[in-house]
Amino acid sequence: MIALLGGSGYVGGAYQTYFQQRGIPYQSLTRAELDYTDLKTLNQWLKQEKPDFLINAAGYTGKPNVDACEADKHNCLFGNAVFPGIVAEACAGAGIQWGQVSSGCIYTGCREDGKGFTEDDKPNFSFRTDNCSFYSGTKALGEEVLKDAENAYVWRLRIPFNHEDSPRNYLSKLMRYARLLEATNSISQLNEFVEATFACFEKQVPFGIYNVTNPGEVTTSEVAKMIEDHGLAPHEFSFFDDEVEFMKKAAITPRSNCVLDASKLENAGIKLTPVREAISQALENWIPEKNV
Amino acid sequence: MIALLGGSGYVGGAYQTYFQQRGIPYQSLTRAELDYTDLKTLNQWLKQEKPDFLINAAGYTGKPNVDACEADKHNCLFGNAVFPGIVAEACAGAGIQWGQVSSGCIYTGCREDGKGFTEDDKPNFSFRTDNCSFYSGTKALGEEVLKDAENAYVWRLRIPFNHEDSPRNYLSKLMRYARLLEATNSISQLNEFVEATFACFEKQVPFGIYNVTNPGEVTTSEVAKMIEDHGLAPHEFSFFDDEVEFMKKAAITPRSNCVLDASKLENAGIKLTPVREAISQALENWIPEKNV
Repeated sequence: MIALLGGSGYVGGAYQTYFQQRGIPYQSLTRAELDYTDLKTLNQWLKQEKPDFLINAAGYTGKPNVDACEADKHNCLFGNAVFPGIVAEACAGAGIQWGQVSSGCIYTGCREDGKGFTEDDKPNFSFRTDNCSFYSGTKALGEEVLKDAENAYVWRLRIPFNHEDSPRNYLSKLMRYARLLEATNSISQLNEFVEATFACFEKQVPFGIYNVTNPGEVTTSEVAKMIEDHGLAPHEFSFFDDEVEFMKKAAITPRSNCVLDASKLENAGIKLTPVREAISQALENWIPEKNV
Repeated sequence: MIALLGGSGYVGGAYQTYFQQRGIPYQSLTRAELDYTDLKTLNQWLKQEKPDFLINAAGYTGKPNVDACEADKHNCLFGNAVFPGIVAEACAGAGIQWGQVSSGCIYTGCREDGKGFTEDDKPNFSFRTDNCSFYSGTKALGEEVLKDAENAYVWRLRIPFNHEDSPRNYLSKLMRYARLLEATNSISQLNEFVEATFACFEKQVPFGIYNVTNPGEVTTSEVAKMIEDHGLAPHEFSFFDDEVEFMKKAAITPRSNCVLDASKLENAGIKLTPVREAISQALENWIPEKNV
């Protein structure tokens, strides 16, 4: 049995769908049933139920976007930096392998050599570089907290998307925003992310950090063009002049836009679809929100 | 009635002594009786008991010193950065004025003009400056979390000491360490800190951050000399050559050594004894631990 924390969220929901489709026994814990944010409570449950694996898809993202984290700092810190530490301690105490849904938003840009950031590169969009949103700061701290965690995977997700229209889906966001910010990013097809992360456990690849993004990088305007080409653009796309105008008119806190290197996961034998192909597939199979 | 959180700690214990001596009604909450780390629980208690004021002296310091925080990051983060946010939210919701025992350890050195750091100076020993211990990082984040807190005092304590020998007393530490690190610091006489912080509430000085240190600064060797002069040196003091040797031989994580400007509190009408005089008084009235 797989234990799932945060099953009601966007990522957690995709894990539930995946387990149901594959007929994998799992239990999605809810805080109403079990206060799993309490170390002793979670540890006791793990010892009793002995799940084969635990996935922590719980976290604090801010709704409708990361700006909301700036006004709720302590809950953001708890959800993204403290809680992963509690899960690590509970799992270590019960001898349970587990995985943390982390985020690639702890980087900005690309490496000096023009390549994507690898798992060995130090986050450059964090409290320690003092250029980040509070959200990204807490996510980077969360990885520091897990640095010595035993039997743990840390999976970095980046701007999730798939074929199902949703306020949390990157493609839907581009369709809905009044104006867009041009940027270059590595991004993650949500269902492939779920499959790939679970494959880490199934194949027992070495524990540690993995960038789980579709290989490659895309610009906002490339994705916008693809949306238009698939006849899914609700209006003509318009762009902010630059990040300065974006920050002035549309945002409270800076966004992470970055390129990640996905080769560590690929070298472990787990492949995701190249990013443009993954976007095309999502747009070809697009399901409007009312039909999801 | 005054509500006190963290009453069992070194600072909290001094508040209890103070309230008892002055006959001020107070209630020291213990987590065994009330899980005050839970927002709803604390908020409900505050609405029911309606204390006139709340003091949060709870925090995670690491024992025997800050090195211990490096190995318990998530609890350190919770105690020093998340929990103050929970208290702020609970107090705001119940309309209760309150004060947070913070720390001056979020600075290193002194200002470029040679003066002590004021409350308006940005912390320079924090995650954002990427030069700090995990402990100091969490303390600075705690102040960020409280930035917009209503009806709240943030009192910065620095290296507490008084006349009672104790493993937490700065003077006792100097007497007990095998070797010392030469540094310049502003420090806080613990009982004066307690009296001054409570005076903030009694006098209703404006809310906000206050450096609560004895005016002035002292070097480690000056204090060591004073200990010798009072016949309290257990052995001849020896010093590390420099911080490099100290870090190599005696510490895991860097220490904050800094000078703070205490004039904001003084200008609000609350005065502490000048630092050398305060140290002399403590040494003159010294009570060995077995007699405390």
